[in-house]
Amino acid sequence: MRASRYLIATQKETPSDAEVISHQLMLRAGMIRKLAAGLYTWLPMGLRTLRKVERIVREEMDKSGAQEVLMPAVQPAELWQESGRWEEYGGELLRMNDRHGREFCFGPTHEEVITDLIRNELKSYKELPANFYQIQTKFRDERRPRFGVMRAREFIMKDAYSFHINADSLDETYQVMHRTYCAIFDRLGLNYRPVQADSGAIGGSASHEFHVLADSGEDDIVFSTDSDYAANIEKAEAVAPAGERAAPAEEMTQIATPDQRTIDAISEFLNIDATRTVKTLLVKAEADEEGNAGLIALILRGDHTLNEIKAENLKGVAEPLTMATDEEIESAVGCKAGSIGPVNLKVPVIVDRSAAHLADFVCGANKEGYHLTGVNWERDLPLDRVEDIRNVVEGDASPDGKGTLEIRRGIEVGHIFKLGNKYSTAMNATVLDENGKTVIMDMGCYGIGVSRIVAASIEQNHDDKGIIWPDAIAPFQVAIVTLNAHKTPAVAEAGEKLYEQLQQAGYDVLLDDRKERPGVKFADMELMGIPHRFVISDRGLAAGTLEYKGRRDADKQDIAIEEALPVLAKASPQKG
Amino acid sequence: MRASRYLIATQKETPSDAEVISHQLMLRAGMIRKLAAGLYTWLPMGLRTLRKVERIVREEMDKSGAQEVLMPAVQPAELWQESGRWEEYGGELLRMNDRHGREFCFGPTHEEVITDLIRNELKSYKELPANFYQIQTKFRDERRPRFGVMRAREFIMKDAYSFHINADSLDETYQVMHRTYCAIFDRLGLNYRPVQADSGAIGGSASHEFHVLADSGEDDIVFSTDSDYAANIEKAEAVAPAGERAAPAEEMTQIATPDQRTIDAISEFLNIDATRTVKTLLVKAEADEEGNAGLIALILRGDHTLNEIKAENLKGVAEPLTMATDEEIESAVGCKAGSIGPVNLKVPVIVDRSAAHLADFVCGANKEGYHLTGVNWERDLPLDRVEDIRNVVEGDASPDGKGTLEIRRGIEVGHIFKLGNKYSTAMNATVLDENGKTVIMDMGCYGIGVSRIVAASIEQNHDDKGIIWPDAIAPFQVAIVTLNAHKTPAVAEAGEKLYEQLQQAGYDVLLDDRKERPGVKFADMELMGIPHRFVISDRGLAAGTLEYKGRRDADKQDIAIEEALPVLAKASPQKG
Repeated sequence: MRASRYLIATQKETPSDAEVISHQLMLRAGMIRKLAAGLYTWLPMGLRTLRKVERIVREEMDKSGAQEVLMPAVQPAELWQESGRWEEYGGELLRMNDRHGREFCFGPTHEEVITDLIRNELKSYKELPANFYQIQTKFRDERRPRFGVMRAREFIMKDAYSFHINADSLDETYQVMHRTYCAIFDRLGLNYRPVQADSGAIGGSASHEFHVLADSGEDDIVFSTDSDYAANIEKAEAVAPAGERAAPAEEMTQIATPDQRTIDAISEFLNIDATRTVKTLLVKAEADEEGNAGLIALILRGDHTLNEIKAENLKGVAEPLTMATDEEIESAVGCKAGSIGPVNLKVPVIVDRSAAHLADFVCGANKEGYHLTGVNWERDLPLDRVEDIRNVVEGDASPDGKGTLEIRRGIEVGHIFKLGNKYSTAMNATVLDENGKTVIMDMGCYGIGVSRIVAASIEQNHDDKGIIWPDAIAPFQVAIVTLNAHKTPAVAEAGEKLYEQLQQAGYDVLLDDRKERPGVKFADMELMGIPHRFVISDRGLAAGTLEYKGRRDADKQDIAIEEALPVLAKASPQKG
Repeated sequence: MRASRYLIATQKETPSDAEVISHQLMLRAGMIRKLAAGLYTWLPMGLRTLRKVERIVREEMDKSGAQEVLMPAVQPAELWQESGRWEEYGGELLRMNDRHGREFCFGPTHEEVITDLIRNELKSYKELPANFYQIQTKFRDERRPRFGVMRAREFIMKDAYSFHINADSLDETYQVMHRTYCAIFDRLGLNYRPVQADSGAIGGSASHEFHVLADSGEDDIVFSTDSDYAANIEKAEAVAPAGERAAPAEEMTQIATPDQRTIDAISEFLNIDATRTVKTLLVKAEADEEGNAGLIALILRGDHTLNEIKAENLKGVAEPLTMATDEEIESAVGCKAGSIGPVNLKVPVIVDRSAAHLADFVCGANKEGYHLTGVNWERDLPLDRVEDIRNVVEGDASPDGKGTLEIRRGIEVGHIFKLGNKYSTAMNATVLDENGKTVIMDMGCYGIGVSRIVAASIEQNHDDKGIIWPDAIAPFQVAIVTLNAHKTPAVAEAGEKLYEQLQQAGYDVLLDDRKERPGVKFADMELMGIPHRFVISDRGLAAGTLEYKGRRDADKQDIAIEEALPVLAKASPQKG
């Protein structure tokens, strides 16, 4: 492509309403423009990358045996009413009425449509398993769209749905999809992790998320230094510290701790480490048969934080997790939140594994302005119920026993999920089995945020000059910058010649033949993240050389003109 | 692709609600399924063809220098209010409110969005001309969606918009688009005609439609036997018959024609050809300054039909064209419609060119139950205003003077249009010209109905066995049918070998390895329209042969196994 005939819509200023770096750089590099909140036009430069992502996703999905279809974006309400989601889905579902007053929505996902299709098309177990995917524009009416295409309202997604005669078959396709997703993200050139996103049923985990690692990620993901173990922080298991709990060495003593209401304050006041304290959180308990809901106490080591998902999933705890109010605490315990503790507490107690491992610890005395020191489980208070209720921290032992845990920020770009028979039951999607018996199909679903990947890749790969594209999804792999070509025919000619040569070799090349100053051209090519750059100048030609620089290289190098292709082939083995 | 792992969703029965052959065959061949009125899912077999159409359109648009973008499907009402179309567009515009109550529509077209983008991005004449296109899902809320994807509500369109500093530049790009469209439809393997769709402004026609010729088409298109002249019937010019009008030979005579009220009846009654009669149609005239609207008479040769578009565009005729009521006729003329004629008529008269060429003709006498014979212009009545107001008929002289006209049915699949400054004026889309002066840009727009092309191709190419795909857009170019392969390993092996060989040669191959009866397989491959078929059987292998048949061939032929590739290469020079 010749830059002079292409929309190079770079901007120097950082747009004020763009909070994250990918959003800023996509605007500055002329990849996207905002039409309205959460609605973006993909300019030519951005669309090239988007299409490359699409192509990689499509090729790997095809390779996996999945079949591509294309379902309507606009979906009739009837199907959503059948699955029960018309009411459930809430404000993110963009609803509309057609000219005859019939209700429709702009599909945010397609479980209902595919289940309706397949219940009509497939009749026999012989036609299973089957996996159908599409790459399509979706709409989710986010309350607060932001971060550009990272959390847009209209976006492009690859969604796939598989159908099975039984759970074993679903498990098999699930594994195929897991491998396929790894192949996709490998090819995309991204540093990513597949992480467990839901606790395992029999036969393994029912859900994995695929995260691109980036400091700006919205999710904490956890993985082992020495194994494949990875999970999102909501699900990462916190194991008990190794070894037996120490024997009691101190007497339980009540001490005055006036105005010391936080773990930090108590630790400093008593000059002990927060790891020797416990904190007590009171939450609502599940209502009993008469509808009366009491409180329940959650006990954590002082330096740990509550994992709300884990807590909420515990028997006896009200869902959604609801912290007790100050009034409820005072009425139940007789003191304020800063002084409560598990000793002689009149509500049921659930103790985290790490807190349960403590000896001679400090806790609130359930008396305003007092704490207890030298407290020991079983000697001073019972230890009935021990559970995993905390977030893991860096350095925790990995739950698979191999290595310790690291925590990094991640951007979710993929999700694979065993749906089981949720939709197939609701919508009566059946086939006949080997014995001619009608059976409900099992289903899996598999999503990839195609447009989000573009932003996630930038979050992971950029510097102060702009984007740094992985070769596989760069809008152009190579830039040829000619200097003062309009005044120097030999430079223009050499540029054209190299352009032809690299294109014929299969590269996606941008020839920057614009009448701009060298500095402008260099800055644009760097901002747009083109991985490889050749510069052709009068001076270089006189010496029979041109300049090569990889986008991540610190230095440029002069090379003989005829070395251009070999140098590029070495730097970028993969072609457009 | 192996058919055993692919959704072959053929149906024997013709669906009762499918009126046209392409709709029937797309359902029967398992290409599409209906989700709701005007909403279709593309099954794998249909999507393959759709994607091939898309690819050809994309490649040719890229070659033309147009740049691909992707605009949001959901568009804010504000832009449509700015152009004035929010109110104008009517029921086909699918409107909706987001969760905050703001108004949006599902874009049926993108003039507003692209004009808004470009007025912000382009600042100088130096950046012009520029042409941007997208291939995208659109929605038009048709009152009565029908004919499957031919007139669906949700459909895929290629829309392009060009921007120019002046009309000459627009004209240049318009010509490039004309050539590009011809290249696209050539590559698609369709028999088509570009036709004038609007009368020419200076510098040529402002609009062309591209029609695929098919008996089931909804439009009549007209073209010359001996030149490139082509137009849709609304616009095709009807020229006057050659030569001078004959001199009067008969006296004007009033004769009683009781109960003869139609041209056919009069012709039979008088035993003359309808070409010797004229008919007189009374329509509403434009209102005068006081708002009084009289009538106006349109005179046609008896065998001709009125072209309403032409008539409506005439000065003095009310728009939209409105026929006079029986009461209005009786009150103005004093007789019923069947007896009116131009002699002594008390309303203004417009005479068609062919009617004006008549001598000694027959017309109504403006007296109930009477006609005049031997009527002659200028002798018996004035001939003031002669215009082209009729539809052309087959055999008419071509308006360019070369050859005669043929009329065929066509399906509109493309449209190129000079918008001029309609949108750029309404939305103030300007650039600076060479002198630093602000000028409104000129615009062109260029549409192709991508999904409609699939149906149009079938309308043009089918037989009683099913679809006949042009090679370029066949879902698979070649089918290999193995007979009883599950019982005969040698057949299965030979099938796999040929499958590998043809794929490596670059063909898109479907290996029908299903455990189905030969008849079922043959019928499916024919119904699905696969252009080339090889059959491998036990008997053939014993003789070292297999069977080849082109989809349009009357006979199959036995060929040596090693001849498969050369035979295919000869029959189908173009690959996947």
